[in-house]
Amino acid sequence: MTQFEPPRMGEPYLLTPGPLTTAYEVKEAMLRDWGSWDGDFRAMTASLRAQLLGLLGDAATEYDCVPLQGSGSYCVEAMLGSFVPKDGKVLVLANGAYGLRAAKTMDYLGRACHLLDKGDYLPPRGAEVAAILANDPAITHVLAIHCETSSGILNPVEEIAEATFAAGRKLLIDSMSAFGAVEIDVAKVPFQALVSSANKCIEGVPGFGFVLARKEEIAASKGNSHSLSLDIHAQWDYMEKSGQWRFTPPTHAVAAFLKALEMHAEEGGVKGRGARYTRNRDVMVAGMRALGFETLLEDRWLSPIIVTFFNPADPKFDFTRFYDLMKAQGFIIYPGKLTVVDSFRVGCIGRMDEHVMTRVVAAAKSALDTMGVASAAPPAAALEERKKLAA
Amino acid sequence: MTQFEPPRMGEPYLLTPGPLTTAYEVKEAMLRDWGSWDGDFRAMTASLRAQLLGLLGDAATEYDCVPLQGSGSYCVEAMLGSFVPKDGKVLVLANGAYGLRAAKTMDYLGRACHLLDKGDYLPPRGAEVAAILANDPAITHVLAIHCETSSGILNPVEEIAEATFAAGRKLLIDSMSAFGAVEIDVAKVPFQALVSSANKCIEGVPGFGFVLARKEEIAASKGNSHSLSLDIHAQWDYMEKSGQWRFTPPTHAVAAFLKALEMHAEEGGVKGRGARYTRNRDVMVAGMRALGFETLLEDRWLSPIIVTFFNPADPKFDFTRFYDLMKAQGFIIYPGKLTVVDSFRVGCIGRMDEHVMTRVVAAAKSALDTMGVASAAPPAAALEERKKLAA
Ligand SMILES: Cc1ncc(COP(=O)(O)O)c(C=O)c1O
Ligand SMILES: Cc1ncc(COP(=O)(O)O)c(C=O)c1O
Repeated sequence: MTQFEPPRMGEPYLLTPGPLTTAYEVKEAMLRDWGSWDGDFRAMTASLRAQLLGLLGDAATEYDCVPLQGSGSYCVEAMLGSFVPKDGKVLVLANGAYGLRAAKTMDYLGRACHLLDKGDYLPPRGAEVAAILANDPAITHVLAIHCETSSGILNPVEEIAEATFAAGRKLLIDSMSAFGAVEIDVAKVPFQALVSSANKCIEGVPGFGFVLARKEEIAASKGNSHSLSLDIHAQWDYMEKSGQWRFTPPTHAVAAFLKALEMHAEEGGVKGRGARYTRNRDVMVAGMRALGFETLLEDRWLSPIIVTFFNPADPKFDFTRFYDLMKAQGFIIYPGKLTVVDSFRVGCIGRMDEHVMTRVVAAAKSALDTMGVASAAPPAAALEERKKLAA
Repeated sequence: MTQFEPPRMGEPYLLTPGPLTTAYEVKEAMLRDWGSWDGDFRAMTASLRAQLLGLLGDAATEYDCVPLQGSGSYCVEAMLGSFVPKDGKVLVLANGAYGLRAAKTMDYLGRACHLLDKGDYLPPRGAEVAAILANDPAITHVLAIHCETSSGILNPVEEIAEATFAAGRKLLIDSMSAFGAVEIDVAKVPFQALVSSANKCIEGVPGFGFVLARKEEIAASKGNSHSLSLDIHAQWDYMEKSGQWRFTPPTHAVAAFLKALEMHAEEGGVKGRGARYTRNRDVMVAGMRALGFETLLEDRWLSPIIVTFFNPADPKFDFTRFYDLMKAQGFIIYPGKLTVVDSFRVGCIGRMDEHVMTRVVAAAKSALDTMGVASAAPPAAALEERKKLAA
């Protein structure tokens, strides 16, 4: 069992949805400067695109990869603005903050949108999608969130894809926090476009994201975009012709990402990476449950990306205090995003393994002890909430 | 006379408009990971904003600073989309690629635009601006490019500002390649908004840019933006309330930038940085002229940022060969962007001083010798072209 080197600068582990803990070697790759026009950097860009396509396996030949400066939300906006024509209509499947953000993006674009809002975490199901599409022939595209990071749920993209394609519509996927660790089988989920970003499961540093899209979709998307900067067709066209990014690329983040891709391959690609995150989750969740914590989601919906726990009912529990106590022990956790009950999140992604997760659980125990919280059990309302999942 | 440490990883100097050669210490600041939600990183964001505002001097209290993920062009688009209302009209003063890109951005936005296109490098003058504004009361904003990096010309922003404010219009400035090294006196140039980016004269690495704008303009800009990601009001509002960036920030580039700001202050701020770049330019231009090269611009229009030289007339001169020979000697130069005559550019910005510039000139001489170019004198057509400036 490998044990990864702890953060060399002594910084805390980031048990968050990203930016996350990256390997020292990844950061070390940023210790030099590159000219963005130079052939060396063009070769780096070509390699990045080819390697990301490679993660799609045999289907790669039908797709192309377009990296884009900015954060992940920029890529979601770019995907919607570039692939949905001005007279198109998108069914946005929301069960958390990122789905809602996509719907808000459609408002900015002034393009039609049907929002299916499932609340904090309930998964949008294939049958619902089929019903909505049957009722509304104007809908041209469906947007699915692969892992909705705000609860940590792994949405059922296969059944969503099936319903979407059965109705002859196009599928767009926000796989920000899943791509690179959760397998997506293009034979079963032949999406038109998918976005992700550098600082999630590939374990690079933040600075850009990327779109994987069918070549025919990219070629057909000319003139759709509402934004010069976020025009995927223009970025792709320029990159194809010149080998360069249209505007100044985040050269250092690109160099770091190439190192991260190398380490991703060494770990066994999507399978290997996914297996480690799954072990991280299993060890962490088992440990937390042993302390009395309860997860928001039933096991079947848990992603290997990030897990939401209910705050303990004990009035002595205080999240800010818990956060600080965890940080003092070297672990940065994340606040929850639920509207109904209080919660917090613990990420499983980044450069860490189950040994770290065991220590995370020990740190949580020590934090509870310091606060004088005897039981981590959640309030009854939380468990009531969770019953909705079974319904 | 300080002599800066050469690039420690042995990479070539980047004599380009950015990304540029940065100090090793700046890159070293990227060797750790930060949680973007954590208090430590919020403090870094607050410090970045305050320090950038500080560069405006006494006027800082009327302005606020909003950093934004993405490249410089994203910030130009964000500025236009956020500060120009949907029924506004912009006079874009173009004399090169970046002015034209701003006009194209207005096309994407679908908002009204009057393009004054002066060609490859002729400066837009105050009197022209005044005449256009007098003729067209619909124009609400003027966009000036501070240093038009495609030729290297330092545009006369003071007379443009005078004409703009005399006509009661608002001034937006793209100071991408000048801010931090060319003083901008807010008493004389009381702009509404200005954009620049991390990887220019502050000598950070690429990954984000920033807007400096009057607080009242930011507050009034709600609802203007065509884009969620590029909405300056939304970014500002969220940052004011939470201390955080709305979406995942380029944490490592931010850390590098803070180190770069520290070194900028140590060098004497805008004055000191500008003085070094001016010496860089003077030494480099004198040396290149001694080899027979001619600058596109007369001295009065030369910026301390980047200088355009005509390609020599000698048929043995070949730019690709010249580029490679310079690179082999440790210097990356940049192709020109003129439409009428062939040219190349040499940057004066980045972590280097006049000693490096002396070596650049020696390398150019050696490259000419290798190619068998006896004289670096440009073709007659180039000098004809330049006469336009005097007219
Ligand atoms: C599913 C999902 N979509 C979109 C985003 C937004 O990405 P960013 O914060 O880089 O803009 C995130 C970020 O965590 C995410 O998890
Ligand atoms: C004056 C000016 N405007 C805009 C830009 C575009 O910036 P970026 O390449 O970061 O998008 C540049 C880049 O050099 C510039 O010099």
